[in-house]
Amino acid sequence: TMPHEGGDWTAVPGGITAPIGFLAGTAHGGIKPGSSPRKLDLALIVSEAPATAAATFTTNRVKAAPVKVSAAHLKSPRCRAVIINSGNANACTGLAGIEAAQRTARAVAAALGAQEKEILVCSTGRIGVPLPAEKIEEAVPRLMESVAAGRGASVAAARAIMTSDTFPKEMAVRVPVRGGKHVTLGGIAKGAGMIRPQMATMLAALATDAAIRKADLQAALGEAVEHSFNRISVDGDMSTNDTVVLLANGRSEVTLAAGTPDFRRFQAALNFLCRGFARMIVEDGEGVSKFVEVHVSGAASREDARRAAEGIANSALVKCAWFGNDPNWGRLMSAAGASGAKVREELVDIYYNGVIAVQGGAASRTPAAKLKEVVTAKKFTVHVNLHLGTAEHVVYTTDLTTQYVKLNMGE
Amino acid sequence: TMPHEGGDWTAVPGGITAPIGFLAGTAHGGIKPGSSPRKLDLALIVSEAPATAAATFTTNRVKAAPVKVSAAHLKSPRCRAVIINSGNANACTGLAGIEAAQRTARAVAAALGAQEKEILVCSTGRIGVPLPAEKIEEAVPRLMESVAAGRGASVAAARAIMTSDTFPKEMAVRVPVRGGKHVTLGGIAKGAGMIRPQMATMLAALATDAAIRKADLQAALGEAVEHSFNRISVDGDMSTNDTVVLLANGRSEVTLAAGTPDFRRFQAALNFLCRGFARMIVEDGEGVSKFVEVHVSGAASREDARRAAEGIANSALVKCAWFGNDPNWGRLMSAAGASGAKVREELVDIYYNGVIAVQGGAASRTPAAKLKEVVTAKKFTVHVNLHLGTAEHVVYTTDLTTQYVKLNMGE
Repeated sequence: TMPHEGGDWTAVPGGITAPIGFLAGTAHGGIKPGSSPRKLDLALIVSEAPATAAATFTTNRVKAAPVKVSAAHLKSPRCRAVIINSGNANACTGLAGIEAAQRTARAVAAALGAQEKEILVCSTGRIGVPLPAEKIEEAVPRLMESVAAGRGASVAAARAIMTSDTFPKEMAVRVPVRGGKHVTLGGIAKGAGMIRPQMATMLAALATDAAIRKADLQAALGEAVEHSFNRISVDGDMSTNDTVVLLANGRSEVTLAAGTPDFRRFQAALNFLCRGFARMIVEDGEGVSKFVEVHVSGAASREDARRAAEGIANSALVKCAWFGNDPNWGRLMSAAGASGAKVREELVDIYYNGVIAVQGGAASRTPAAKLKEVVTAKKFTVHVNLHLGTAEHVVYTTDLTTQYVKLNMGE
Repeated sequence: TMPHEGGDWTAVPGGITAPIGFLAGTAHGGIKPGSSPRKLDLALIVSEAPATAAATFTTNRVKAAPVKVSAAHLKSPRCRAVIINSGNANACTGLAGIEAAQRTARAVAAALGAQEKEILVCSTGRIGVPLPAEKIEEAVPRLMESVAAGRGASVAAARAIMTSDTFPKEMAVRVPVRGGKHVTLGGIAKGAGMIRPQMATMLAALATDAAIRKADLQAALGEAVEHSFNRISVDGDMSTNDTVVLLANGRSEVTLAAGTPDFRRFQAALNFLCRGFARMIVEDGEGVSKFVEVHVSGAASREDARRAAEGIANSALVKCAWFGNDPNWGRLMSAAGASGAKVREELVDIYYNGVIAVQGGAASRTPAAKLKEVVTAKKFTVHVNLHLGTAEHVVYTTDLTTQYVKLNMGE
């Protein structure tokens, strides 16, 4: 299971609206042709006070228009809002797509009395379909009314950004700091194990009422993402739209400076929050029947550890075996060997939930039935020790099921 | 479809036994516990005269024992025979596996009056199961009798090395050379699209009666493999046992020297043979419903062309869409962008069987129904032009089907 490192925080309700001065609203914009009028497809996150912003984006060379526009807007020292639509990725839509993303930001900016560059934009849905910006412009007044109404706004926003997700994802924590004060950190996210690729995007909007310098905020987010969203893998595919944003508006009156014990506490809570969302995304995959932690240790380098873990986690053969409750450690050996990582097979040990399956590169004495019992469970850990060094890497992944294929066959 | 480049050769019957001085035999060794007594699981290819040998092996860091032993034996200047067993990969079997492969070679060498190092050994089957060398030793006399009997031996050998294959694979061609003479080139192969990973190995044994220097033979085989077996992809997984061997025994009394027109003719015929086998392997995948050529052109470098083509060919999402007859070019764009290749999306054009789907990174005016018609066929080509340079790469691949998952679920 995901590491639940101990920490000095308390879970609190309210998701993205838990931190002081963050509001959320939702609306039906009718973004996807033919969608139900009851389907919320727009979410707006507003900070009452100008916030500093950090973000990480997909490293896909093909980036959706909102990713390009938000990356440009992120250079602004201040951010006031994040608007997210589902039902359309606004990816591979050319210059018209850029204009649609800019119009979206402009409409929100006008409603808030802010500048266009102070608005971040995210989209999720099918690639290659023009985004109807006019529908978003028409919806902005309704979004603002919804923001003003408050109450239950975070879970509604989490619901509005869902595509193939089966449940809305929101979390918040309160972090004590010195002087008896505290800061709050919360967010919403979407993503369903990347199993429905037309709308496979992983998005997360996070907010805190701490005051944090932009560079420190970016570094903190980078670390948290590296150990959470960057360690989940369902099918090895990467979206054109993946985005994680973090706003810090300082409304708690607590300033956190990098290098202090309070900042480390904040970082730990941020890591926890991102890991929690990453875990929810993997577990929410429709068509997924198992949640597997792949832990590679003893690698000659960190890059080798990552390669071997991802090689195993992305192997179609390994994942099919898991679906079939077949321990089949030979497929893990082969996938590790093919990953590009340095492997000396005679040194490799493999454990299933701590039970040794492979010792020195060959079958252990563990009865096959015992290994089968482990992989028959809904959740288990495979641990591969390469015995070549000290580097480690963990990837959280799933099995590959007939249901996955059916869900991805078409429109 | 696969390129059928014109060439100066004629198809002839006889497979691996078509070249002068090559014989084949088969036997039931009972290698896999519980296998039918009628299942041939051993094939022996013998050259009457000592031959030069070349081979290419899997680049998986986890190599089966027969790969290690054959790589060592390949250093010998002469080769007399290749023995292949199905029903057991002899991979991840430790020192006992090495000994079993050596015993296999030794038994054949004794029967032929040759040296152990003049025998190459190949295995295909489940990983991690000890190979019963004694059963092979017992079977060698029967193999020798079968070799002596002749007649239909090549197709029987092609059948004996089958695992999940649905048809035996053999081919031979006659290549005219100057002076009104000719040389013959033939072979057998196995592999079923790597769709049954426990026994997913691709093996090919090739033979020619030309006399060719060992270094030239290895270079020729390397070129042929690079443009055939190295360009097929079903699921991105790579076996621990993949092996292609080529023997040249000189019995045609024709010597071919690198750089001559005759050698180029031989190379072209060898390329043709390897491509033919590669095509058979992809098409034989049980659970596979489509055969797709992925052609990337206009890449900034050859490495980029390869990355983009393999990124598309190995994308689970792309392959599921094909299974569902969904053109879904957005998934191709995303897979190319995520491949690590340099991509400027606004330059990308994509064609389905020559029909433009994507122009300058966005939807073309081609009606969706027309694209759907293309991908509904059993075979089609997708061509991605990156418009960044002149490098190209082609990969032959398949769709990803519910049947694939079912076949790979377990034992």
